[in-house]
Amino acid sequence: MTKREYLCGLDAAVDVVGGKWKPLLLWALNDAPRRFGELRREIDGISEKVLIQQLRELERDGIVKRTVHEQVPPKVVYALTPRGVALNAALEPLGEWGEANMAHIVATRVA
Amino acid sequence: MTKREYLCGLDAAVDVVGGKWKPLLLWALNDAPRRFGELRREIDGISEKVLIQQLRELERDGIVKRTVHEQVPPKVVYALTPRGVALNAALEPLGEWGEANMAHIVATRVA
Repeated sequence: MTKREYLCGLDAAVDVVGGKWKPLLLWALNDAPRRFGELRREIDGISEKVLIQQLRELERDGIVKRTVHEQVPPKVVYALTPRGVALNAALEPLGEWGEANMAHIVATRVA
Repeated sequence: MTKREYLCGLDAAVDVVGGKWKPLLLWALNDAPRRFGELRREIDGISEKVLIQQLRELERDGIVKRTVHEQVPPKVVYALTPRGVALNAALEPLGEWGEANMAHIVATRVA
């Protein structure tokens, strides 16, 4: 995701949200902030390296804020920014469409 | 896009919509059905090969219907299915989020 020109808002949004893990990450952060280890456990199958990379991209895009609490050991917490909260709200109808059509989509790909 | 298992509806939806050209294709088809050549002209920079492939995937996923009108030369028209119309409606808030945040997203990627 290195494109820097977009032809429409949807194009830009899909560039931010696309990729295998980001919808799941946004979903996991929707209810409450999460520590790194919590995200790692919640998102089944993601490697540490990939999780770090995905979180960095979301941070760069202003969707997620990373806060380090100075304690021993340091506590690192990831939370949605206001921009991220708005993104999640905008994704809700798309998630509902996906729920309603998932069986169909899976069927077409097995065929 | 060959994944066949999804962990949530949003995951499935992003799999259908993701990729460089599909948001633009869905946008182009939103107003009215289009002939292949019209899509090719409207979507600046897409190659014929890629356009064919993207349309095939959208057809497979039940988003787009391809109709051949038997005439000389044959007229091939692409239109959204009811499932595709519902998808586009669900994408609208995401497109609006993208419009509102595009300048920010572009800026973070240039930086």
